[in-house]
Amino acid sequence: MAISLRRARVIIRKALEKGREMQLKPLSVVVLDAGGHVIAFEREDGASPGRFGIAQGKAYGSVMLGMAGTAQMARAEAQAYFMAAVNGVYGGKVIPVPGGVLVRDKKGAVIGAVGVTGDTSDNDAIAAMAGIEAAGLTGEI
Amino acid sequence: MAISLRRARVIIRKALEKGREMQLKPLSVVVLDAGGHVIAFEREDGASPGRFGIAQGKAYGSVMLGMAGTAQMARAEAQAYFMAAVNGVYGGKVIPVPGGVLVRDKKGAVIGAVGVTGDTSDNDAIAAMAGIEAAGLTGEI
Amino acid sequence: MAISLRRARVIIRKALEKGREMQLKPLSVVVLDAGGHVIAFEREDGASPGRFGIAQGKAYGSVMLGMAGTAQMARAEAQAYFMAAVNGVYGGKVIPVPGGVLVRDKKGAVIGAVGVTGDTSDNDAIAAMAGIEAAGLTGEI
Amino acid sequence: MAISLRRARVIIRKALEKGREMQLKPLSVVVLDAGGHVIAFEREDGASPGRFGIAQGKAYGSVMLGMAGTAQMARAEAQAYFMAAVNGVYGGKVIPVPGGVLVRDKKGAVIGAVGVTGDTSDNDAIAAMAGIEAAGLTGEI
Repeated sequence: MAISLRRARVIIRKALEKGREMQLKPLSVVVLDAGGHVIAFEREDGASPGRFGIAQGKAYGSVMLGMAGTAQMARAEAQAYFMAAVNGVYGGKVIPVPGGVLVRDKKGAVIGAVGVTGDTSDNDAIAAMAGIEAAGLTGEI
Repeated sequence: MAISLRRARVIIRKALEKGREMQLKPLSVVVLDAGGHVIAFEREDGASPGRFGIAQGKAYGSVMLGMAGTAQMARAEAQAYFMAAVNGVYGGKVIPVPGGVLVRDKKGAVIGAVGVTGDTSDNDAIAAMAGIEAAGLTGEI
Repeated sequence: MAISLRRARVIIRKALEKGREMQLKPLSVVVLDAGGHVIAFEREDGASPGRFGIAQGKAYGSVMLGMAGTAQMARAEAQAYFMAAVNGVYGGKVIPVPGGVLVRDKKGAVIGAVGVTGDTSDNDAIAAMAGIEAAGLTGEI
Repeated sequence: MAISLRRARVIIRKALEKGREMQLKPLSVVVLDAGGHVIAFEREDGASPGRFGIAQGKAYGSVMLGMAGTAQMARAEAQAYFMAAVNGVYGGKVIPVPGGVLVRDKKGAVIGAVGVTGDTSDNDAIAAMAGIEAAGLTGEI
């Protein structure tokens, strides 16, 4: 099963709605497919210009390693040089903090990831989960 | 004046609608701001996974050089080494063909660019223009 | 549908067998998934050491652009600067010649690609097709 | 003496078998030659897509430095900036943790390396050793 564009739009809209409901700073949200490639992205007005790369980096590491942002952060805190080396292998595209959320289908297979950036990493992850759940999918933060 | 997320969404939706109306292959559409940074992107179901980079590359060169895809292609055909050198400077992110469309405000100032990929370069540019015009902005192909 | 490791092994073994049957030079064969990521690779004894990158490059461009090696070569011959620019976007990983073969499932969806290198590009493509067909899949050279 | 493709296949199959016997997560296994170049690779179904780079990185640093994963990790923990600098020199391709295992011939000469990833670094190294020994070679973790 793949994340359709229709579902990716739901994820993004609902994540942004959650951000407004929680009065977060302007958010940026990316949805990647199971190969780490971009399906859709939106950056809210007022967000800083470099947010695409941060959102992508949170989601990209999640897909490529099969490990969501929280687990990546734990590994980075225990073994910083390991995550630095992983970034070398993945072209410097990995941002190992919460807000990178794995997306699973009903059988538990990873079908992509969502990356949210703009507020605290924990709030970013909450917004991502709201989007994923609204699309009827399962997230892992 | 900046392209708002609301307007970027209109550009993307109308470009995709134009593609379906013209029976083009699945399209991918990016909207960049005046600094060449991503505001929004969507890839239609069935498009190949690497389309984000191509769409971005068409729009990125347009903004960074202030020269739309058609003019970039003319320069590449006359002087291929020049566009290759430009790509060295811009980190290899420029795709110098039609489908990269400059976006101007009412005074003529460049406020961003749209990149469309998926069908022929000329059809990509037609879809981009449909989106830009639907958003009440002026495009330069 | 994804290419299983079991099927990737069949593709590689049968491509190598075809090479020996045709008395080709030592071959190297890679199988990529639908996101352009490596599932399996083998380099025959006697092949030059850099063959992994060439095999991957033939298959990688095929997946990312949704365009097999023959079509990529035609584009490169008509518009060399375009394929050079594509390579910038894809990190220099694209080798636009035959031997990069798209793999489709029964519905026609691209589920990966095979890259073969070692002999002439046309012979490489024949070996790739032999492997893909032996695995019960459809190839596009 | 070089690692033949036949032997590389034995290494990979036996490492994967060991992983299944120990009930490890899906593994990915690469075999590199004495120049750090890929001979063969397999990624088990269910492994995350980015595993090739991690497996290669573990083995690549081992060959290039003549220092297996355990020794690289010790150096990274004592002097993180040194391994970061090494990665600059080696194009960011080194992952300095266990699971990168040097392969020696009967005279003790390094003839290549195996990289395994998917489970804990220590379990990855055990699987690699099982493969190397099954092929009649000597490993150094």
